[in-house]
Amino acid sequence: MTTIHAYAATKPGGPFESFAYDAGELGPDDVEIEVESCGICHSDLSMLDNDWQITQFPFVGGHEVIGRVVALGSHTLGLADGDLVGLGWTSRSCMHCNECLSGAQNLCRDARGTITHQHGGFADRVRCHWGWANKIPEGVDAASAGPLLCGGVTVFSPLMQHNLSPTARVAVVGIGGLGHMALQFCDAWGCEVTAISRGRSKEEEARKLGADHFVATEEDPKLQAQAGKFDLILNTTSAALPWDAYIAALAPGGVLHTVGAAAKVEASVSPMIMGQKSLSSSPTGSIVTTRSMLDFAARHKIAPMTEVYSMQDINEAFEKLRNGSPRYRLVLTA
Amino acid sequence: MTTIHAYAATKPGGPFESFAYDAGELGPDDVEIEVESCGICHSDLSMLDNDWQITQFPFVGGHEVIGRVVALGSHTLGLADGDLVGLGWTSRSCMHCNECLSGAQNLCRDARGTITHQHGGFADRVRCHWGWANKIPEGVDAASAGPLLCGGVTVFSPLMQHNLSPTARVAVVGIGGLGHMALQFCDAWGCEVTAISRGRSKEEEARKLGADHFVATEEDPKLQAQAGKFDLILNTTSAALPWDAYIAALAPGGVLHTVGAAAKVEASVSPMIMGQKSLSSSPTGSIVTTRSMLDFAARHKIAPMTEVYSMQDINEAFEKLRNGSPRYRLVLTA
Repeated sequence: MTTIHAYAATKPGGPFESFAYDAGELGPDDVEIEVESCGICHSDLSMLDNDWQITQFPFVGGHEVIGRVVALGSHTLGLADGDLVGLGWTSRSCMHCNECLSGAQNLCRDARGTITHQHGGFADRVRCHWGWANKIPEGVDAASAGPLLCGGVTVFSPLMQHNLSPTARVAVVGIGGLGHMALQFCDAWGCEVTAISRGRSKEEEARKLGADHFVATEEDPKLQAQAGKFDLILNTTSAALPWDAYIAALAPGGVLHTVGAAAKVEASVSPMIMGQKSLSSSPTGSIVTTRSMLDFAARHKIAPMTEVYSMQDINEAFEKLRNGSPRYRLVLTA
Repeated sequence: MTTIHAYAATKPGGPFESFAYDAGELGPDDVEIEVESCGICHSDLSMLDNDWQITQFPFVGGHEVIGRVVALGSHTLGLADGDLVGLGWTSRSCMHCNECLSGAQNLCRDARGTITHQHGGFADRVRCHWGWANKIPEGVDAASAGPLLCGGVTVFSPLMQHNLSPTARVAVVGIGGLGHMALQFCDAWGCEVTAISRGRSKEEEARKLGADHFVATEEDPKLQAQAGKFDLILNTTSAALPWDAYIAALAPGGVLHTVGAAAKVEASVSPMIMGQKSLSSSPTGSIVTTRSMLDFAARHKIAPMTEVYSMQDINEAFEKLRNGSPRYRLVLTA
């Protein structure tokens, strides 16, 4: 039995308050992680506000955890006491369905979320199945790595899913929490990278992060100057895009991949058929995709840009996320 | 110079009448084909009716041609006088763009259609670039092979595009001109095949053509009994499907591939993200895909089911296509 000291909201919108709960016996497949830092993802805010009508209160958010293994169940594999690990959106999957056994554990129909099925990482400790505790490789800056575990793998996974060639022309739509990591990954992947943002305020930064080109949609809303250009467009926004215009910006055979949860996609079929174009999407990433992402980030010195708050200032950090424009990810330290 | 005797419509809706035209000098890259038979595709009817506002009159349709090479330009490759060949939707591509040179000639932005940029195969002769005259392999029944060149390759190409595994569960939506060939290809590909049709009138035939299962949407419009089942759904209809229901019928990682030109696709994004699902599409197929399809059809004895008319009865055949329910493709013989 472990008493975990956390920050919980007791009602939609918060605030977060000190909250202690008994985590019970450690399951045989579970590890317990002492939290060193935890990123704040926009989905923590959606869960806090009960936007998806699935939040259970008291609600403990936090699914971009970096910490040390401090307890191991009797059947855990590959981990040792004291290992530095990262935990993301998923904390458990069944490990015996076809998706799990073929390496697509993020598509397990019985997967459990770190903040949707248990209490998360805004706490001194958090638990997960051993498989989802990803060792942080040397070369990754632990203090800023939290956001890699959710936002980072979310934009990295499509590059593996589509077996993207470094010869590809890629556009990243939305230069924010996800997009600023996507620019770095696509640049290190060897691609020709275009950043697409509303205005030009982020142009200089986008270029530093790896963009070869910058497009401001307020100057060319229908992307007319980009027609037929991109092999992959990675959409990180949840805006209702002018979908036909983005499909027209794809080269023949190109893919418009969305990781931002717009409500609907609505597109004309004929131009898709004529150009053999696709609309695809994905959620976070599998275990091995997460490991590959961490190794890739270490080799290429890819890190989220973060603003750091002490965990006791969690409400101030959420106020910044709600009303400010953090550049680009917020992290709470223990 | 060649005088070609054809059947042309002089106005939208027809009828077709005898029409002779001078085809001019044979280009250095072109071959001339003496037509033995020519399928009628639904797109011939759309062109006849000027549905797409691109038809030039007099209009000579016909892009599912089987015939013999009777003249060769000075720079043609790989063909000899007397070869039995097939010609489909595309008669020319530029052969020097990235798409052509990487083997995706059907995506050439300068591709020319057999009935959109020249006079087609409802004639005694027709011409095309040597690359698009596909030799008909032994084992393919020439009399019924015409529809393979357009409808056949259209439903075969997605299997190659997605590198479909024979372990996959595939659904074919719409058991008509395209779907009845798709069932045969998917069955020979080794897949578990489900035919999806409105009612049960085609069930027995669909099972003979290779369907392991049959679903009548009038009994289960939202496909609730099929939830999470298919790795690939191949949609051959141009109906406005209940897209979200079809996406729900995909297994995690599944693809809804459309070759039928519905006006729009409209789908909820979140279920696509959560299940890593995609919407894709494609037009006919490349040169090598066409050749592979013909070889595959020969090895597996796959043939369109056809109703045959003499070419002089072309108007009667179009009347059948317009108001009847041919099972499943119409072919005109010289």
